Amino acid sequence: MSQDTQKAIAGKRAAQFVENDMIVGIGSGSTIAHVITELGRRVAEENLKIVGVPTSERTRRTAAKLGIPMYNVDDVDQIDLTIDGADQIDDSFAAIKGGGAALLWEKIVAVNSKRNIWVIDESKRVEKLTQYLPVEVIPYGSDQLFRRLENDGLQPTWRLDQNGNPVRTDSANFLIDLHLPAIESPQDLSHLLSEMVGVVEDGLFLNIVNQVVIGTDTDSKIIDVK
Amino acid sequence: MSQDTQKAIAGKRAAQFVENDMIVGIGSGSTIAHVITELGRRVAEENLKIVGVPTSERTRRTAAKLGIPMYNVDDVDQIDLTIDGADQIDDSFAAIKGGGAALLWEKIVAVNSKRNIWVIDESKRVEKLTQYLPVEVIPYGSDQLFRRLENDGLQPTWRLDQNGNPVRTDSANFLIDLHLPAIESPQDLSHLLSEMVGVVEDGLFLNIVNQVVIGTDTDSKIIDVK
Repeated sequence: MSQDTQKAIAGKRAAQFVENDMIVGIGSGSTIAHVITELGRRVAEENLKIVGVPTSERTRRTAAKLGIPMYNVDDVDQIDLTIDGADQIDDSFAAIKGGGAALLWEKIVAVNSKRNIWVIDESKRVEKLTQYLPVEVIPYGSDQLFRRLENDGLQPTWRLDQNGNPVRTDSANFLIDLHLPAIESPQDLSHLLSEMVGVVEDGLFLNIVNQVVIGTDTDSKIIDVK
Repeated sequence: MSQDTQKAIAGKRAAQFVENDMIVGIGSGSTIAHVITELGRRVAEENLKIVGVPTSERTRRTAAKLGIPMYNVDDVDQIDLTIDGADQIDDSFAAIKGGGAALLWEKIVAVNSKRNIWVIDESKRVEKLTQYLPVEVIPYGSDQLFRRLENDGLQPTWRLDQNGNPVRTDSANFLIDLHLPAIESPQDLSHLLSEMVGVVEDGLFLNIVNQVVIGTDTDSKIIDVK
C-alpha cells in the first residue's frame, strides 16, 4: 500500500522533468505506469508536445493509447531523456533491471539517451545488489549455457510463463535469472557474462543514471548522480 | 578452380576424423558442403553411426537429406567434435567467421564441443586478419549502434539481401560487417565489441580450434594447434 503510494508520488514527480519538444525514452514496470499516466495527462490537458520511445512493446501500447506519439529508437536522432524504473540500486548507483523482462530494450534505450532518470520507491535502495539478476540469452544452445552457469556457481533458474514455458522477450530471446548473494563487483560480473557465448545482455546497469527520484510516503527525494 | 579442388580435398580429409557413435557439430559454408557430402556417403555406404548438430538451418536441411540424424545443440550432452570452415585464420590461429551469416550458431556449437577442427583452402591462411568482420546485432536500436560503430572508426556496412533488406540470421538478428585494416589484437577488438549494448556476437573465434586441415592442390596438410 505504502509502496504503491511511493511509486505514484515518484512517478508523478519524475514526469515533471519532461519538457516540450523532448524525445523521451519511456521505461517499463509498475512505477513507470504512473509516469506514463501523468505524461498522457499532460499531453491531453497541458498540450505537452513530446515524442516517446518505448523500452517494451507493452509500454508502446500503453503510451500510444494515451495519445503519446511513439517512435522506435532507430527513428529518432537521439533521446533527450529516458525515465525508467529499477529493481534495485546500490550505493554506487549500479542497478539491477529486468524483473519485468524488458532489460535488453531498456539498456538499448538508456545508452542512446543524453540523460537517464530512474524512479523508485524506498525499498529499492540497497547497500549491495542482492536481487536475482536477469540475463537475456539466445534460445539456441541455452540449455548448454544454463549448465555452464550452474557449473560456475551462478545459480541460474529459467524465467517461465504461467504455462511453464520459457518467457520470450520482445526480441524473442529467453531469460535466465541468477540467484547470487550480494554482488561485490557488478563490473566484474557484467564482464564475465558479456564474454559468454549465447548471452545477449545482462540486467546490470552501470554508469548509466544521472538522477534518481525516490518516492516516500509523503514526498519525493531527488539525488543527482552525475 | 584450384580453390574448389582444395576445398574438396580438405573436406574429404576432415570427414575422416569422424568415428562411430560420435556427436558431430557440422559447420556451414562451401568447404563444409564437401564434409557433409562425405559424411552422408559414409553413413550410407559404410554404415557410420553418428548424430549431427547443425550450425545453421541450411546445414540441418542438407545433412538431414543425406540421412544424417540431426539434433539441436540442447538435445545432446556434449559435442565430441565439430568440423567447420573459417574465412581467415591468422598466425596465432585466431579466425574470422561469419561470411555465410552463421557465426552465432557456429560459435555456440564450437564452445560446446570437446574438439574443433577447421577446414580451409590455402588462401584462408594469413599473417594478420584483414577480412571484414561480421557482427550479429539486435534489430531494435541497430541504426543507433551502426552510427556508434561509425563514430568509433570501425567502418560498418549492413549485410543486405538481394532485395536490399537487412539479412536475417537464423536467430532473426541483423549483421553488420566491419571493414578494418589488419586486426592487430583480436582479443581487444572482441572485448570492445562484446561490451557494446546490442551486439549479440562477433565473428572473431579465439582459442577455439584444436586442428586445422588445409587443402592443397594435390593433398591436405594437418596442423595440430592444441
